[in-house]
Amino acid sequence: VTGQPARRIALVIEYDGARFGGSQRQKNAPTIQQELESALQRLTRVQTRIALAGRTDAGVHATGQVAAFSTSSRHGIEVFVRGLNALLPPEIAVLRALEVSAAFDPRRHASSRTYRYSIHNAPVRSPLRSKSTWHVVEPLDTDRMRRAARALLGEHDFAALSRREGISTVRRVLRCDIARQDDLITTEIEANAFLRHQVRRTVGALAQVGSGKLSVGGFRSLLRAAEPATAGPVAPAHGLCLIRVAYEGLDL
Amino acid sequence: VTGQPARRIALVIEYDGARFGGSQRQKNAPTIQQELESALQRLTRVQTRIALAGRTDAGVHATGQVAAFSTSSRHGIEVFVRGLNALLPPEIAVLRALEVSAAFDPRRHASSRTYRYSIHNAPVRSPLRSKSTWHVVEPLDTDRMRRAARALLGEHDFAALSRREGISTVRRVLRCDIARQDDLITTEIEANAFLRHQVRRTVGALAQVGSGKLSVGGFRSLLRAAEPATAGPVAPAHGLCLIRVAYEGLDL
Repeated sequence: VTGQPARRIALVIEYDGARFGGSQRQKNAPTIQQELESALQRLTRVQTRIALAGRTDAGVHATGQVAAFSTSSRHGIEVFVRGLNALLPPEIAVLRALEVSAAFDPRRHASSRTYRYSIHNAPVRSPLRSKSTWHVVEPLDTDRMRRAARALLGEHDFAALSRREGISTVRRVLRCDIARQDDLITTEIEANAFLRHQVRRTVGALAQVGSGKLSVGGFRSLLRAAEPATAGPVAPAHGLCLIRVAYEGLDL
Repeated sequence: VTGQPARRIALVIEYDGARFGGSQRQKNAPTIQQELESALQRLTRVQTRIALAGRTDAGVHATGQVAAFSTSSRHGIEVFVRGLNALLPPEIAVLRALEVSAAFDPRRHASSRTYRYSIHNAPVRSPLRSKSTWHVVEPLDTDRMRRAARALLGEHDFAALSRREGISTVRRVLRCDIARQDDLITTEIEANAFLRHQVRRTVGALAQVGSGKLSVGGFRSLLRAAEPATAGPVAPAHGLCLIRVAYEGLDL
């Protein structure tokens, strides 16, 4: 198939991150990127690099991760969905595929990412939810959490919710919605981009506000202090899910 | 602790049935009953028989299974919850415990059982829902399914939805609610009691109605024919969950 004009294809991907070492290719653990590249190579018989929109840590899930690759394969777009799903392990699935412009970069062109963090807030653990929620025994006051979360909105230096990495720690948080349904508390956070561990540290600190260990004012002060990683514990990876990556002028 | 009057304790139990051979004690597979009895023996140091309200098959889940046992242990009721949860494997948890009358029989005294069956109705499989839902690719018409489900209500011979077992196959279905939220279809069925595989055969047949393979009239005819196991396929076990067992005059 030499001589074919290269096509660029975007994929929307869902995965259960439990047994993976994260999204990005690495040496000592299976990753989402490796599994996708391996399935694509088996489908097209060409070794192909796949780029991912969001870097998710070991154990983090996704229902709306975006990937992209270039190929000279002439397969119809539906063949990529069905073919990859037949070749991928059960923990990963391609939900949709779309042909995009040759220059499409899923990471750099993303206008925002949305993560959902799920807390199971009950005295007793739940076997059916233990793999997708953080079990918090102390009753959490979601009204307090919501009041604190307002301080996250807008463009701020979020150094207090990450690690010092020699890069800018300024990000723009567009939305932070906290909802409770019985004993399930979900926090959805949308931002232009996130620092490493930002969502998990945000939820860790919000949970401290919810349980009364930290005041709403104390939460605000920690944020504004902008000292690296001062804002409380990191909520565990298995409660986190990348649910959407948005692009201007592209409806995935 | 000899000489103590025996107490009878009821437990409400949640479990992920994936790796178990069902609820009832058996020789060649781990079961819910064995795990509960083993944990209770370690807690009280006395070998104790535990009775379960509903017999769930291999792979079937529960959020509202009820168990009961007699004990001369003087542990407070909260010690049974915390102690058993510390000793049980992660797939099983005691949600609540309650002291009940000495004659309480969780199976014979139950006035009704409610099961929920979950279908993931979408073209592509979902890694995050594959363990708790049946993936059905063909679009299902839930209005048609609801019209067919009305024929289930009331006291009928449900032989067509079970196997001939030399016992009465008459049961009383109190409720069958079918709800869709995006690509998740849940069917909740409450009955005084259920025949073996009744819920899974009911959902299997309703899915055929939903996909158009079976007419609403055809579904009614199959039911009324009352021939054993004529009403289509058995929906897989992992989509099924026992969500409630009800007792008159006892609020668990």
